Formats: sequence, structure tokens, C-alpha cells
Amino acid sequence: MSEQGGTPGTDGTTTGAPGGGTAALAGLAAYTELAAFGLLASRSVDAPDLVTRQALAAAAGGVLDRQRRLLAVAADRGLDAAEAMAPFDGVLADFDARTTPGSWQEGLLKGVVGHGVAQDLCRELAVGLPSDEADALRAAVRQEDADDPATTVLAEAAAADGVLASRLALWGRRVVGEALGLVPTLLAAHPALAGLAEAARSRAAADGGTDRAGEPAGRRAGADRSADVQAWLMARLTAQHTRRMDRMRLAA
Amino acid sequence: MSEQGGTPGTDGTTTGAPGGGTAALAGLAAYTELAAFGLLASRSVDAPDLVTRQALAAAAGGVLDRQRRLLAVAADRGLDAAEAMAPFDGVLADFDARTTPGSWQEGLLKGVVGHGVAQDLCRELAVGLPSDEADALRAAVRQEDADDPATTVLAEAAAADGVLASRLALWGRRVVGEALGLVPTLLAAHPALAGLAEAARSRAAADGGTDRAGEPAGRRAGADRSADVQAWLMARLTAQHTRRMDRMRLAA
Repeated sequence: MSEQGGTPGTDGTTTGAPGGGTAALAGLAAYTELAAFGLLASRSVDAPDLVTRQALAAAAGGVLDRQRRLLAVAADRGLDAAEAMAPFDGVLADFDARTTPGSWQEGLLKGVVGHGVAQDLCRELAVGLPSDEADALRAAVRQEDADDPATTVLAEAAAADGVLASRLALWGRRVVGEALGLVPTLLAAHPALAGLAEAARSRAAADGGTDRAGEPAGRRAGADRSADVQAWLMARLTAQHTRRMDRMRLAA
Repeated sequence: MSEQGGTPGTDGTTTGAPGGGTAALAGLAAYTELAAFGLLASRSVDAPDLVTRQALAAAAGGVLDRQRRLLAVAADRGLDAAEAMAPFDGVLADFDARTTPGSWQEGLLKGVVGHGVAQDLCRELAVGLPSDEADALRAAVRQEDADDPATTVLAEAAAADGVLASRLALWGRRVVGEALGLVPTLLAAHPALAGLAEAARSRAAADGGTDRAGEPAGRRAGADRSADVQAWLMARLTAQHTRRMDRMRLAA
């Protein structure tokens, strides 16, 4: 971890959706896309055959295209690429250290799972943005590559080899555990993002009438409220991870 | 090396510019761009800071954009990406094995020098294409990134550290030697490319009146002609390498 101070433009509170929310979310999303680029590109470099090597290189290129759109949002707010991402530099160091893959396939699945959780998190947080703001950001984080080449490669490998499928399923659980474990740390370090999470949670509760505890979300406060927001977010991210693993025919 | 048969559409001769020249050149160029992507992306992954990491990721993305245009030329001739590149798969294995970098900067310079020689070679060979053909290919291989971020990073590092600059200059000579050493092997294995080299040489001799030996190039034949073509090509590639090293303020 090498957190470099707070996010630009935050007001230090965890209520509402602070003005810096859009810039912080664009920075987080762009940084996680850069990390995903590295994971995909590395698996292209040591791919077992030319077809896979090319497919993963193209996928890494697609990740950069998405990152370009996210950085454009940050640029609209006066932040260059490095300024936007700097608050998140090193945020994945612990995750990386704890998920050293044992094979090429595990490395690829790490990328798919880690990138998936990061994208899902950004999409959830984007719901908390003020509605008059950041349409471009919402559009950039909304987009999903269901037919992502990496997913296809893993689905095919798992279908062809039951032992590998079991190993990958186990590995996926480990990776998602580490990825989800980052979320509370991230929100605690970045009040602007915590504010977005809370706003997204309130919106979901308003849409559904009440939260899962049967109590209007707005009535709670402080640590209790923060715990509720985290539990809600974890449940959402876990459900999306399960669907992702299902698409690869891997047990979540 | 794992050459997989000849290039598609070659007629097995080394004279003139065979019909398969465009497809073979597009395949070679696309394959070397894929290799350059891997070298740049890998140096993005282990870059010393976020600014460099982002710059090299973006440069790797630019390489893929160029590759997309080259593959479009191959697709026009009915070849998908893997079909176009397959004849060259493994062609860089010896080069890679003989140029294991000792540092991050050496790895980056390997990418710059290797990619540079490959691009220069493709540009030279493109001159041998029939003039009614392959404008798109010529346009794709002509383009050069003089302000390539990798070049800038190396120029700045060399300017700041004389010892590093000397080491990198030495390393550049080693890398270019290995890269140039591949060219005769490549031309011998791919008659369509050898045909382009000869056509390009003839065109240069016609433009200049005579070749360096003071004799019209067309008059020679066989092994003598092939040796002349190779010597001419090596001289061109070496001169371009020297200019590239100069731009980084490294002694060639």
C-alpha cells in the first residue's frame, strides 16, 4: 500500500456525494483498468498459442480504450492521467502479493476476477453520483464485455478438463476473497468514494422501499450506517462475481 | 524457431515480387507489432512509477492500433489474424533467447531497438510492392512514432546518468546485432519477402542509376544478387538504427 493522501476535491466527510466523487471514481476506474491491462497483456506475452496471444493482446487494447474514456472524464475536471490515478497507486499491492498465480490459467482468472470486481464496484459507486453529473463516466463504467476473450479461454479450458475446473473454482474463491477484502480499506481511505457508496445504497433502499433490515436506510447513522453500506455492497459484488463464474462454468 | 511452412501465396521463387508479397509483409509486420506490444506492455507492468507505467501502456495500445491496420490488409486478402501471422510464429525465439535484459532500461531498449529494426525492415520491403497494390499497407508501415514514449524515457535516463548511457549504448549494439542477424534467415525462409527485398533493391538502384558496385543491379544473378540485396538492406537498416540511437543520445 502506498496511499498518497486523500482523493482530490473531497470534503473529508462520508455523507452525501461530495463534489470530488466523479473525479475520484474516474481515477479509481482508470487505475483498475491499467492494472487489468497489465494482467491481460502479461498473459498475452506467455500465452500457449498465437491465437490466444493475439486475442488477449486485443482484449488488453480494449481495456485501454475504456481507460481512455475514463481519463477523459478526469481531464474534464482538470486532472491529467497521473493526477487522477495517483491517489490509488499501490492500492492493489496487497492483493497482488496475496494472489500469486500457480499457472497461466490461474493468472488469467486472477485478471478476470479482479477486473470484474473492480468494474462492478465502479458501476455500483456510479449509481451514487448526482444525476446531473458524469453521464460520460456512467457510460464508461456501465459497459461490460460479456464475451471477453479471457472469459472464453477459461470457459473452454474448464470445459475440457474437470480437474483444472475444480482448481480454478477454488482459485477464484481465493481471488475474490482478497479482492472484496480491499473494498472496506478503499472506502475508508477515500471519503469521496464512501460518500458515493452511501448515496448508491440510499438510492437502492428508496427504490426498494426499505433496506434488508426492514428499516428505512436514512434513519441510521455513523458506524451502523457504514456497516450497512458495506454489507449491501459486498452482497451486490458477490452476486455479480457468482454470475461471472457461472458464465465460465466455474463454481463460485 | 518454429517456422510453420512457407508464407501463404508464395510461388517459391525469389525473383520479382510474388503475389503473396503483400500478405506475407502484412503478416510479418503484424507479428512484429504483436511482439513489440508484449515488450512495451511488460515494461509498463514493472515500470518504476505511475507516469511511466501509463505512458508505456498507452504506447503499447498505439502499437495495437497499428497492428489492427496491418491485419485489415491481411483480411482483405482472406487471411485472419492467426493465418497471417502463423508463418512468422516463433521467428523471434532465438532473438529473445540471446537478448535477456539485465535491467528494466535494457528491457525497454530491447523493445525500442527490436521494434525499430522490424519496422524499418517492413518499410524497406514495402518499397518492393507492386505500385498498384497495398497502399494501405504502405501507409501502415510508413508511419513512425518519433516521439514514442519509450524513446523519451530512455533519452531522459541516459541524459541523467552517464554510466547508464554507456551501458545502454553497449546493449543497443548487442540487440541490433541479433536483430539484424535474423534478416537473412527470414528472407531465406520466406521467398515472397526475399522477392520484395530484391524488388526494393532494384528500385533503389534504378533511382540511383547504379548500385554501389557501379554496375546496374539487374545484370547480376543468383547468389551474387542475393548477397548484394542483403548487403544493401543491412546498410539501410544499420543507418536507421544509428539515427534512432542518436535520437536517444546513445552511441550506436
